[in-house]
Amino acid sequence: MPVSAIDSLLFKNLFGTHEIRAVFDDKAYIQRCIDVETALARCQAKLGIISEDAGDAITTACNKVKLDYDRLSRETEIVGDPILPLIRQLTAACSDDVAGYLHWGATTQDIQDTATVLQMKIGLDVIESKLRGLSDALKVHCKKHNDTVMAGRTHLQHALPVTFGYKCAVYLSGVQRHLQRLEQLRSRCLFVQFGGAAGTLASLGSDPDIGVQVRAALAKELDLHDPNITWHAARDGIAEIINFLALVGGTLGKTATDIAFMCSNEVSEVSEPFVPHRGASSTMPQKRNPISSEVILAASKILRSNASLCLDAMLTDFERATGPWHLEWVAVPESFVVVVGALTQAEFAISGLVVNKTAMRQNLNSTHGLIVAEAVMMELALHSGRQLAHDVVYEACKKTIEQGGDTTLLEVLGGTSQVTDAISDDRLRELCEPGSYLGAAKRMTKDVLGQVDSALA
Amino acid sequence: MPVSAIDSLLFKNLFGTHEIRAVFDDKAYIQRCIDVETALARCQAKLGIISEDAGDAITTACNKVKLDYDRLSRETEIVGDPILPLIRQLTAACSDDVAGYLHWGATTQDIQDTATVLQMKIGLDVIESKLRGLSDALKVHCKKHNDTVMAGRTHLQHALPVTFGYKCAVYLSGVQRHLQRLEQLRSRCLFVQFGGAAGTLASLGSDPDIGVQVRAALAKELDLHDPNITWHAARDGIAEIINFLALVGGTLGKTATDIAFMCSNEVSEVSEPFVPHRGASSTMPQKRNPISSEVILAASKILRSNASLCLDAMLTDFERATGPWHLEWVAVPESFVVVVGALTQAEFAISGLVVNKTAMRQNLNSTHGLIVAEAVMMELALHSGRQLAHDVVYEACKKTIEQGGDTTLLEVLGGTSQVTDAISDDRLRELCEPGSYLGAAKRMTKDVLGQVDSALA
Amino acid sequence: MPVSAIDSLLFKNLFGTHEIRAVFDDKAYIQRCIDVETALARCQAKLGIISEDAGDAITTACNKVKLDYDRLSRETEIVGDPILPLIRQLTAACSDDVAGYLHWGATTQDIQDTATVLQMKIGLDVIESKLRGLSDALKVHCKKHNDTVMAGRTHLQHALPVTFGYKCAVYLSGVQRHLQRLEQLRSRCLFVQFGGAAGTLASLGSDPDIGVQVRAALAKELDLHDPNITWHAARDGIAEIINFLALVGGTLGKTATDIAFMCSNEVSEVSEPFVPHRGASSTMPQKRNPISSEVILAASKILRSNASLCLDAMLTDFERATGPWHLEWVAVPESFVVVVGALTQAEFAISGLVVNKTAMRQNLNSTHGLIVAEAVMMELALHSGRQLAHDVVYEACKKTIEQGGDTTLLEVLGGTSQVTDAISDDRLRELCEPGSYLGAAKRMTKDVLGQVDSALA
Amino acid sequence: MPVSAIDSLLFKNLFGTHEIRAVFDDKAYIQRCIDVETALARCQAKLGIISEDAGDAITTACNKVKLDYDRLSRETEIVGDPILPLIRQLTAACSDDVAGYLHWGATTQDIQDTATVLQMKIGLDVIESKLRGLSDALKVHCKKHNDTVMAGRTHLQHALPVTFGYKCAVYLSGVQRHLQRLEQLRSRCLFVQFGGAAGTLASLGSDPDIGVQVRAALAKELDLHDPNITWHAARDGIAEIINFLALVGGTLGKTATDIAFMCSNEVSEVSEPFVPHRGASSTMPQKRNPISSEVILAASKILRSNASLCLDAMLTDFERATGPWHLEWVAVPESFVVVVGALTQAEFAISGLVVNKTAMRQNLNSTHGLIVAEAVMMELALHSGRQLAHDVVYEACKKTIEQGGDTTLLEVLGGTSQVTDAISDDRLRELCEPGSYLGAAKRMTKDVLGQVDSALA
Repeated sequence: MPVSAIDSLLFKNLFGTHEIRAVFDDKAYIQRCIDVETALARCQAKLGIISEDAGDAITTACNKVKLDYDRLSRETEIVGDPILPLIRQLTAACSDDVAGYLHWGATTQDIQDTATVLQMKIGLDVIESKLRGLSDALKVHCKKHNDTVMAGRTHLQHALPVTFGYKCAVYLSGVQRHLQRLEQLRSRCLFVQFGGAAGTLASLGSDPDIGVQVRAALAKELDLHDPNITWHAARDGIAEIINFLALVGGTLGKTATDIAFMCSNEVSEVSEPFVPHRGASSTMPQKRNPISSEVILAASKILRSNASLCLDAMLTDFERATGPWHLEWVAVPESFVVVVGALTQAEFAISGLVVNKTAMRQNLNSTHGLIVAEAVMMELALHSGRQLAHDVVYEACKKTIEQGGDTTLLEVLGGTSQVTDAISDDRLRELCEPGSYLGAAKRMTKDVLGQVDSALA
Repeated sequence: MPVSAIDSLLFKNLFGTHEIRAVFDDKAYIQRCIDVETALARCQAKLGIISEDAGDAITTACNKVKLDYDRLSRETEIVGDPILPLIRQLTAACSDDVAGYLHWGATTQDIQDTATVLQMKIGLDVIESKLRGLSDALKVHCKKHNDTVMAGRTHLQHALPVTFGYKCAVYLSGVQRHLQRLEQLRSRCLFVQFGGAAGTLASLGSDPDIGVQVRAALAKELDLHDPNITWHAARDGIAEIINFLALVGGTLGKTATDIAFMCSNEVSEVSEPFVPHRGASSTMPQKRNPISSEVILAASKILRSNASLCLDAMLTDFERATGPWHLEWVAVPESFVVVVGALTQAEFAISGLVVNKTAMRQNLNSTHGLIVAEAVMMELALHSGRQLAHDVVYEACKKTIEQGGDTTLLEVLGGTSQVTDAISDDRLRELCEPGSYLGAAKRMTKDVLGQVDSALA
Repeated sequence: MPVSAIDSLLFKNLFGTHEIRAVFDDKAYIQRCIDVETALARCQAKLGIISEDAGDAITTACNKVKLDYDRLSRETEIVGDPILPLIRQLTAACSDDVAGYLHWGATTQDIQDTATVLQMKIGLDVIESKLRGLSDALKVHCKKHNDTVMAGRTHLQHALPVTFGYKCAVYLSGVQRHLQRLEQLRSRCLFVQFGGAAGTLASLGSDPDIGVQVRAALAKELDLHDPNITWHAARDGIAEIINFLALVGGTLGKTATDIAFMCSNEVSEVSEPFVPHRGASSTMPQKRNPISSEVILAASKILRSNASLCLDAMLTDFERATGPWHLEWVAVPESFVVVVGALTQAEFAISGLVVNKTAMRQNLNSTHGLIVAEAVMMELALHSGRQLAHDVVYEACKKTIEQGGDTTLLEVLGGTSQVTDAISDDRLRELCEPGSYLGAAKRMTKDVLGQVDSALA
Repeated sequence: MPVSAIDSLLFKNLFGTHEIRAVFDDKAYIQRCIDVETALARCQAKLGIISEDAGDAITTACNKVKLDYDRLSRETEIVGDPILPLIRQLTAACSDDVAGYLHWGATTQDIQDTATVLQMKIGLDVIESKLRGLSDALKVHCKKHNDTVMAGRTHLQHALPVTFGYKCAVYLSGVQRHLQRLEQLRSRCLFVQFGGAAGTLASLGSDPDIGVQVRAALAKELDLHDPNITWHAARDGIAEIINFLALVGGTLGKTATDIAFMCSNEVSEVSEPFVPHRGASSTMPQKRNPISSEVILAASKILRSNASLCLDAMLTDFERATGPWHLEWVAVPESFVVVVGALTQAEFAISGLVVNKTAMRQNLNSTHGLIVAEAVMMELALHSGRQLAHDVVYEACKKTIEQGGDTTLLEVLGGTSQVTDAISDDRLRELCEPGSYLGAAKRMTKDVLGQVDSALA
């Protein structure tokens, strides 16, 4: 039975999804290795490097092979990597006349790296689709709650009113940037790997161009990009991808931080979607824990840790590394599974989020108008300058807090001559209405939605 | 099929061992949870909190239960943790009269934490045994190679002669300190967890002492330590353990760094144990890669990353955390598997290490005596002061390097009057013999072995 | 002007204190290096290794020297470390007859490491004193608020009632364990370093014991521990210390997490101490930001990062490392400054914490009795078994939430025959009083205070 | 005196440079804050939001102000950030009629964030220039050493021959990708920040467009990009930049790993540039430590750590964060200083690198032809199939190693009938010449140089 949380019967569907595991599990990995070996044979056959029939013959034979996984496992432990053991079984499955052309001119790391890139390519497609799903879910809230006023909070203190739509637009802006990053890194990072033992492609013979031609053909065959030089020891591409996943994790973690806090009893502004027994407690029947947020918060840290490992993995020695490479074996699959798990949880939580507009309004009003102190200060500043306005309103706030009970800032300000000398009663009342002090919140939400001109409200 | 490197058919025996996986896999985890539930029932029955027979009846029924793992998995995904789903199946297995006493007064985290501590307790025993095995393997080299002279290297430059025994004694000193750390942390970290929903043990009724008595009895029953207060939200114990594993990883990583470098062609002072096809290349028949060192180097980074996650996990909120706890679900099992994997690789590599004394001597001599420049400088300093001695010998070294070929430092010094005026020819020759400039290397090796008085040399 | 936040005119007193900076700044570091050089000279003079007067003469001269810091800086940049440049200036300050005995048999790293250990020794004393101060501040709350009932929260949801004293006792239990850790690591980590160029002490001559005697004498002179072998390349001691600081940071971070949340408007259960303009906003007069908590939260992450760097620093190569050592130059001073800064903020915030008992009670009551649902469930379970009790109370909770308004759980339960058949009205009312469902909270608080027998309540 | 390594008199020029410190020190930071305040005033004056003259009057007054740094420092400690204290001094410097318009509608974080972005903008220019300098230095070696044959090493074992030019081209390919990344992230990350207290720009009045207009004008005035929404709480841009610096650190760390190893006595293929006393030892006159490589290796880890902190900093709460933001105050300046320090060390080391072609050739020949075993195997495979060829050559390699002494692989192969039956003596000799087995190494070097068509060879 498995040990790791991403494979555990108990935990795997919290931290990941079936879809992404199927891209990165052992079976998929070995199949991607076979895909690389067979594509290589086809390319080399086409280029006349190996016998003309060998490409198809090898492809057919390898895709029919029944692997002995136990033997593969045992031999990998001895050799230190799985390619030699895999080739042994593939070779046995091929007819004698073509078997010798398997893995022609390639080295272990060529196959493993390209297999990993193929997995990451599919994985990035999954991530793009999840980012778009999350984006759609956020857009719904941006539009629906563009007028839903709530307390904006800074340093966990009420600051000024915002809208829930605006809040979602801030999340959305990050998602939009991630989609741009994703697009840009594909062509920079999704490289085929084909360099032979020391990266020089020497094994393909004395013509210095033939190796590069095979590499280009292989890239095309596998729909990957063709690098300008072997990258066995230049791992910035993989590190960039895993760092990107950690950036995505950061944005999700920010969102989950907000949701978890808003789910707390005292705030109660949102709840994660209700599903019977979801987030239930073994002892407390009243509980509904924000499970998705919890998993996302954990995921963001795990992604950060794996990004670090892939930065460590860049410190390769010479032409192929002694240890650092192994870090990618651990960090790459785990990161993809965990980020897709977190994206799935986020899309679930956001799209089904229960928004409690009443609680938002109640919280907004709970500080008796203090939240719009700035509105008064800014208006007063037009008359008396910023510093004096600050001091006067600061004192009024202190007084409101100290008097407690139902005393409102409006009342205190109404009794302060420095204020009433400058601002009329009606205007003061207007300034103290939280819902009318939203600045460009709605405008910015529309800007993020790319719908500035449309009648969104 | 699994995704994670520690579960992967291909990689699991590189990064871990069967023994340690069996302590931390799903099956073991669930069994430890059942152990906690049944021990709790027995303690509560003995203390008269639940019906007298319930303890044994629950124990017997739960240990016979055939779990439906699919259902467990499905329900865990909904609830967010596995305890409620597990209890449902255990309850069904118990007779109606006792079923209600299962999980009495406990909360999910009580069971999961105590199960984890039980796993870690066994895991630490495995680690202790591995540390002792490694210690024994190092001791053999300390004794056998206490006279094996080789170049000491600082900043990757030849510095002064050392012995291979001394080098191993430095590694050993770290292992000894780790054994001391391990001993000290057991009583500080291996706590039973039993606090109920908010840690107060309120569910056990109005007698404020009864809960504490159950906790003490449960600790005794499970052979764990009894904390003075609930630690649901005080995770320093777990963080300390995982940080300790990372410290062990650091010492192993240091050793692997040395071995990998010494295995390089140019140095060739040691080889990892020879096993047919071990560390073989798919294309280069002459290769023998230092696989154990590679895996250990990777492991040391993974352990460091998980230590970080467990420090993050300390930032719990309130009585039980929203997210941070989940980090331990990921980091604890992975760390134990990976550290035991690395210790196993280290013991294998060290105990079977092929030591090439000839290469050590050749490398030592390769700088034509420069490595004992200090010996001459120190003797000269007694006559002419440290600064002048330094300058004179520094110049002689430069000259030796510049002349190249077979010119030795001894020859250059023999032609330097500031030296020959102060030191006789014979003494100079003696000073220039690398093997005789070992200071307290052997003495310190004996000190580490704790055998100062015995005739080790 | 400085760049780093710990030196910045603007930020240094947020992240650190004058006291701890004075232990780790350049001046202190250089003085500690001089202390080591002079102590070494005195020890060697006493043991007859260098001329009898040299010890005192060197000590007197070096402690009077006016260093040319610019030159020191310039030469350090070229040499790569500051010891040779420092010795040059010290040598010039000594009379010719003793100058040559400076730094006798030592290597650069001997001096730097021992200087660092001397700094850490003082630093750990500062930390111990701060931990004791924090412990005292927590004890005051434990005692004063042992009856202050508030909502216990798990997964940010109300769980069961706790007391504020209990909560502080949980923090305190971590502080107590840290004091124990600190005590244990002193003798394991505060080692003198003295090994000479390759760690063998060869420069002290052919008597294998003399070097070890000097090392022991030096340890005694500097009040440090004497290792059994040179630890130039075995850095577990330093890594353990910096990991310990990160563990302390974890406990502080947990505390700050709670305080920051409790300071939020919606919770309002505590405020950080009021100082005019503290935590003020440039625009919002009503704000009072929880500055101490913010700094502590940041500090906990910085300490975690530095702990990682010191684990990296363990991967030294051979007898003295090529790069890893430099990580300690960065991480050690920063960690000590930041942990003392955080401890100081914590002691300030805790000792002056404004506790709002009224808000605690209001929050506790805000869920209309749901928080004691478990109390009813446990009592009901005695009659109807745990599972049925769970289901009945679970339904009652849902109903209470759905009806909203002022409906209490007590009212809903009072209308549920499965409850009223088993539990009397009076008993039900009693069970629904949050303040009476505290289990062993007070008992555990006393246990942590070590005052079980005294009349604390 | 400073504590931090990047400010320390002793260490600052190892870890950084004067140029980059001058971008990020306190003085520069405060000046950037003043730049933002004054630019804001000018924009608002132009847009008619504040009085027409206020823009220029504020700009003139603020740029002449003599700040009282002690007071700034003291007040920052109390307030928790430096903006209010700074405004106090700036306000005092302005005439009464305009003083009130300072900081109009802005919040603390608007100023600090934009100041930081201005610093990063300059910092990225410095980095670009350093990357181009390093690129040029590498290109020189690519061209000069395109024929310099040396051993390629994988897993620290000789694999196949490469050229030193090829090796440098691999480093260069990473630098090229970093330049592309840098270009792409500028427009995504170098945003002006202007949102007011809760990000909504409410303080600029009820016209929802005016705030956005000011933001756009401010972006233009400061030559920054204009975001589509406030990013107080969306920190992916800063995290991306600091992660990018860590990626650069990874490439530098890889290069330093290679150089340090090649500088070792046994390999001796390169030396860092010679400068009198550079890398000197206090006791060993023959030493020349690879200082630049050591510092770069340490830098790569520090950059990785700071990247992690900036990922943590993404987990902001609500509209402005409680703690996470402070992490950037620490990590951003340190990362920029350290990466520029490392780039400077790298450019110095690479451009002045002493390349020892003789040693490269000697090392290549040291394995008696084993390094070209693959060449023979590939040729033999054309006759006998890959598997048999592998086995035959594998055995020949083993025999060569076992016979030791001067036995060459050529001799052993010459005595193996399976080989001699298939390959002529002359061809075998040719195959065994290391220098002729370079594959596409030179071609790929040219591809990286972008000079495929030119006559480089």
